[in-house]
Amino acid sequence: MILKPIDDRVVIKLDQKTTEKKVGNLYIPDSAKEKPQMGEIIAVGNDEDLQEIVKVGDTVLYAKYGGSEVELDGEKYLIISRSDILAIVE
Amino acid sequence: MILKPIDDRVVIKLDQKTTEKKVGNLYIPDSAKEKPQMGEIIAVGNDEDLQEIVKVGDTVLYAKYGGSEVELDGEKYLIISRSDILAIVE
Amino acid sequence: MILKPIDDRVVIKLDQKTTEKKVGNLYIPDSAKEKPQMGEIIAVGNDEDLQEIVKVGDTVLYAKYGGSEVELDGEKYLIISRSDILAIVE
Amino acid sequence: MILKPIDDRVVIKLDQKTTEKKVGNLYIPDSAKEKPQMGEIIAVGNDEDLQEIVKVGDTVLYAKYGGSEVELDGEKYLIISRSDILAIVE
Amino acid sequence: MILKPIDDRVVIKLDQKTTEKKVGNLYIPDSAKEKPQMGEIIAVGNDEDLQEIVKVGDTVLYAKYGGSEVELDGEKYLIISRSDILAIVE
Amino acid sequence: MILKPIDDRVVIKLDQKTTEKKVGNLYIPDSAKEKPQMGEIIAVGNDEDLQEIVKVGDTVLYAKYGGSEVELDGEKYLIISRSDILAIVE
Amino acid sequence: MILKPIDDRVVIKLDQKTTEKKVGNLYIPDSAKEKPQMGEIIAVGNDEDLQEIVKVGDTVLYAKYGGSEVELDGEKYLIISRSDILAIVE
Repeated sequence: MILKPIDDRVVIKLDQKTTEKKVGNLYIPDSAKEKPQMGEIIAVGNDEDLQEIVKVGDTVLYAKYGGSEVELDGEKYLIISRSDILAIVE
Repeated sequence: MILKPIDDRVVIKLDQKTTEKKVGNLYIPDSAKEKPQMGEIIAVGNDEDLQEIVKVGDTVLYAKYGGSEVELDGEKYLIISRSDILAIVE
Repeated sequence: MILKPIDDRVVIKLDQKTTEKKVGNLYIPDSAKEKPQMGEIIAVGNDEDLQEIVKVGDTVLYAKYGGSEVELDGEKYLIISRSDILAIVE
Repeated sequence: MILKPIDDRVVIKLDQKTTEKKVGNLYIPDSAKEKPQMGEIIAVGNDEDLQEIVKVGDTVLYAKYGGSEVELDGEKYLIISRSDILAIVE
Repeated sequence: MILKPIDDRVVIKLDQKTTEKKVGNLYIPDSAKEKPQMGEIIAVGNDEDLQEIVKVGDTVLYAKYGGSEVELDGEKYLIISRSDILAIVE
Repeated sequence: MILKPIDDRVVIKLDQKTTEKKVGNLYIPDSAKEKPQMGEIIAVGNDEDLQEIVKVGDTVLYAKYGGSEVELDGEKYLIISRSDILAIVE
Repeated sequence: MILKPIDDRVVIKLDQKTTEKKVGNLYIPDSAKEKPQMGEIIAVGNDEDLQEIVKVGDTVLYAKYGGSEVELDGEKYLIISRSDILAIVE
């Protein structure tokens, strides 16, 4: 069973790394205003513009407000909109 | 008697599965922020863009706010807008 | 004396059936959130898009908020906008 | 001295009939939500779309909120926008 | 020293007649809701649409909210936007 | 060190004349509602429309709300948007 | 590990100079309303319009509200939108 996001949404996998707020040399301080979060994109919506900007497998920073949470096989996922994606982490 | 939704709306059937918040390996945790819900699309509005994205029979996740509820032959239905549909569950 | 709605508005006749909230096998539960209402379209505005979607004689479900109420020959009518029409009941 | 409304505005004459809230077989009940009012159009703005929809001499129902009131030769007039016009009464 | 309004703004001269709220047979009652005011246009902004609708020398009714007030040679002027102009008084 | 405003912004120099609220025969009364302020444009953003309307050296009236203030060589400057510019003073 | 901002966002490095609120002869007074801040752009989003206006290496003034803060190798960065960028400091 998979999730196909609609329009300009993406599905983000909320893995262990997100909880730690640290990936490699990147760190999200607790004191940050509008604290972003990290996650891996596992599905991209049907919006063609969006498909040229982010791809499945990209790790992204996204705004912590908004998004709809579901669980699939015990893993947590978040469905967010393009406007919530801040940057790709490479 | 059937319902033909207008513009970019769809009619969603609210079946037993929705109540359980679990379909196959997909689960909606109670703790989820902006908790989505699941349902089957039984009619798609006249908006042509929308008709290319979702079809009758699709099971979708949708945002729990909004939507207008009716009963038909004792079954519950919800009329929601495209912007409330988050993802297709396949 | 008749009413010709402007732009994307329609005139809805609020008949007895609306009061009962039941037409054939369709029923609007009192517990419904954003409870829709039913009525028959007796006039469609000059908007050409709208004229391809609904016709005089259609029974429609519409959102209960909004709309302007008048009486004609003792019958109640409501003038609502396209965005308030949810679905055609057939 | 006459009034030439700008853009998509019209000038409405607020005559006796409006006060009575009854024209022929048309009646505006006091209990109406978003109670509309009636008046005769005496001038239409320079907006070309609008000029195809309403004409000087039309009696219209309009939303009671909004509009700017003036007196000309002791008669009351209201300047309202296209979006406040609900229907033409014929 | 003159004022050249920007975009769709006009400069209105607030003369004595405005204070009296009466020009010829036109009168603005104190009881009016959204009471309009009168003034003469002395400059029109660079917006070409606007320049086809109002001209320097036109007496206009305008909405009393908004607008920025200045004095030039002891006369009061108001800078308002196109959307604040209700009608030309002829 | 100079400031190049982005998009439809301009940089305004807040000189002594602004403080006096009087330039030549132009005066901004304290009682004015939405009191405008005066200043000289020292830089215009990259927006091409804007560049046809105002030029470096123009004295402008602008709305007193909004704008971001900086000091350069002890002089005060304000960065404002096109929509805050009311009129050019000539 | 680097950050690639999405759409019309840029990544700003918040260095020591920002803290001092002074670069060369440019100074941001504490009393400033809507106090702007300074920083160096280290990455520009995929928006093509934006790429013609600002470049990596530009020092910019930006509005202090908004933006998402992260740390990379102990340095602080802020991800902001084009609409938050006020001017390039040259």
